[in-house]
Amino acid sequence: MEIEKIGEFELIKRIAKKVGKGKAFIGIGDDAAVIKAGNELLLWTVDTMVEGDHFSLKWFTPKQIGMKAIEINASDIYSMGGKPTYALVTLVLPEKTKIGLIDGIYNGLLSTAKKHGIEIVGGNITHGKQLAIDLTLLGVTTKKKLLLRGNAKPGDYVCVTGNLGDSRAGLLCFLKNIPGFSKVKKKYLEPKAQPKKAKRILGKANAAIDVSDGLASEIRNICTQSRCGAVLYYEKIPVSSEAKKVAEMLGLDSKELALFGGEDFELVFTVPEKKFKKGMGIVVGRTTKERKIFLQKKGVKKPLKRFGYDHFKENIEKVKTK
Amino acid sequence: MEIEKIGEFELIKRIAKKVGKGKAFIGIGDDAAVIKAGNELLLWTVDTMVEGDHFSLKWFTPKQIGMKAIEINASDIYSMGGKPTYALVTLVLPEKTKIGLIDGIYNGLLSTAKKHGIEIVGGNITHGKQLAIDLTLLGVTTKKKLLLRGNAKPGDYVCVTGNLGDSRAGLLCFLKNIPGFSKVKKKYLEPKAQPKKAKRILGKANAAIDVSDGLASEIRNICTQSRCGAVLYYEKIPVSSEAKKVAEMLGLDSKELALFGGEDFELVFTVPEKKFKKGMGIVVGRTTKERKIFLQKKGVKKPLKRFGYDHFKENIEKVKTK
Repeated sequence: MEIEKIGEFELIKRIAKKVGKGKAFIGIGDDAAVIKAGNELLLWTVDTMVEGDHFSLKWFTPKQIGMKAIEINASDIYSMGGKPTYALVTLVLPEKTKIGLIDGIYNGLLSTAKKHGIEIVGGNITHGKQLAIDLTLLGVTTKKKLLLRGNAKPGDYVCVTGNLGDSRAGLLCFLKNIPGFSKVKKKYLEPKAQPKKAKRILGKANAAIDVSDGLASEIRNICTQSRCGAVLYYEKIPVSSEAKKVAEMLGLDSKELALFGGEDFELVFTVPEKKFKKGMGIVVGRTTKERKIFLQKKGVKKPLKRFGYDHFKENIEKVKTK
Repeated sequence: MEIEKIGEFELIKRIAKKVGKGKAFIGIGDDAAVIKAGNELLLWTVDTMVEGDHFSLKWFTPKQIGMKAIEINASDIYSMGGKPTYALVTLVLPEKTKIGLIDGIYNGLLSTAKKHGIEIVGGNITHGKQLAIDLTLLGVTTKKKLLLRGNAKPGDYVCVTGNLGDSRAGLLCFLKNIPGFSKVKKKYLEPKAQPKKAKRILGKANAAIDVSDGLASEIRNICTQSRCGAVLYYEKIPVSSEAKKVAEMLGLDSKELALFGGEDFELVFTVPEKKFKKGMGIVVGRTTKERKIFLQKKGVKKPLKRFGYDHFKENIEKVKTK
């Protein structure tokens, strides 16, 4: 059987089952692995960006590639209630890569690492046909601060920390050569991890995850691991006015950009009603005992059947040929 | 300027300079980064294997790819005096990859991880044109056990823990469709990290490194970081009888396979004469105050000018077309 038929979600479940449970505090399945180290917990994550799939040199400056590599990994650490500390960087470089490109990537890596208090301590450089950057990030947290995907309780509010869909709207503008729309284009090129927003929910939220693959996919991850379900309120999902305009131009539903777009790197979290405060985020749904996920639109609940971005079912090049 | 002109060694020096020194115990430049964690030191390394560059599915079973990914990373941890603990695995998968291939890779990863006491705690799966596996490994050690590249002292013996050149001999057999020579082929397909040999030199060796790029390259790394030089004794470099036969068939000097081949994953270490014991390894040279590297052959010392495998100057495909 080929991977396109099974999809990313099922593939990861399959691998997690094969690997099994060990002595790590948290193994496969959350934004980062969690390992005990003295009185602290180490958070540990990795993310890979491949040219043609995750970025294109037609749109990204080398600096923006470096910036994005740090931000998307830092986002995984913040969404678990941690602080990023150290990074290893692997660059896979095709023949005839210019030194200036590498310098540019490192300029982005270093300035963004500094902003987050991250130190680059090593890595690896090797040859391959496609330019790729693979970043491994360590972070620290404590048991008290640790924020998992799997602790949502039925009846929690489902919240998001900001507009969703901007990044996908930006990508669509690039793919379809649409001029203007600089805000959503920038959101796509320069996503930002959200340490301040993560801090605001610490000690209050039951579960959290960052939006890398779209709201629908993230809520599925939370529900699967928390053994609960959820209802999402279509009308409440926050979308920027620029994303709405892009969607309109392309004859798309802007809420679908939010649900299935991804790469917004805002946080999705669940929080008991009593602990929710306005500054924490926007309520977009509620978790339920029944282990199904529904989208409620104009008062009508329908099961959600699509779940965000899947690297094996779509990628930049496939989108391009549509 | 293009990377082929600058080469891997200079490129890493350039990046290390750009990144600078931070608060990590050891940053860029050793087999693994070293980070303080309570009373222990964390060792942290990453290595990437790209199809066509680092392996070919024509020769490797999926299981052997998984095995090799663990062994080559574990080797970096042992060569620093540590014990590997946890791993993150990134798979970059082309379209139409068979699930059986992924299962096979994981079978290799898991059996080899178990052998070394390593737990796989997470990772990442993504899409790319070339199959690639990127493994990040954590390990632990103590200040007392830590074995760096940069602590060699002038007058140390330079030693290796076993035959060198087998792996390159095996690769050449595959590239040139030479039948037989199963021992060196197996050394290439199934390299092994050397925990027992590493243990034997702990507390005695001044500096150590594993042979990933060939003896010449590794001794250059030790000398550069230890601010010393070395003389290597051509006649003393240990080469297996099979590697000698392969070299002879191909009209090559078997010692060159050892010096410039790589992927043997034996240890190169320096040790004061007084601390050297026979079971630790084979003496192949001596470090010197003068910061140059010489190869002594039939009593004549000549400066060593070539330094092992460089991913940007040669790769499997380039070797193929020779």
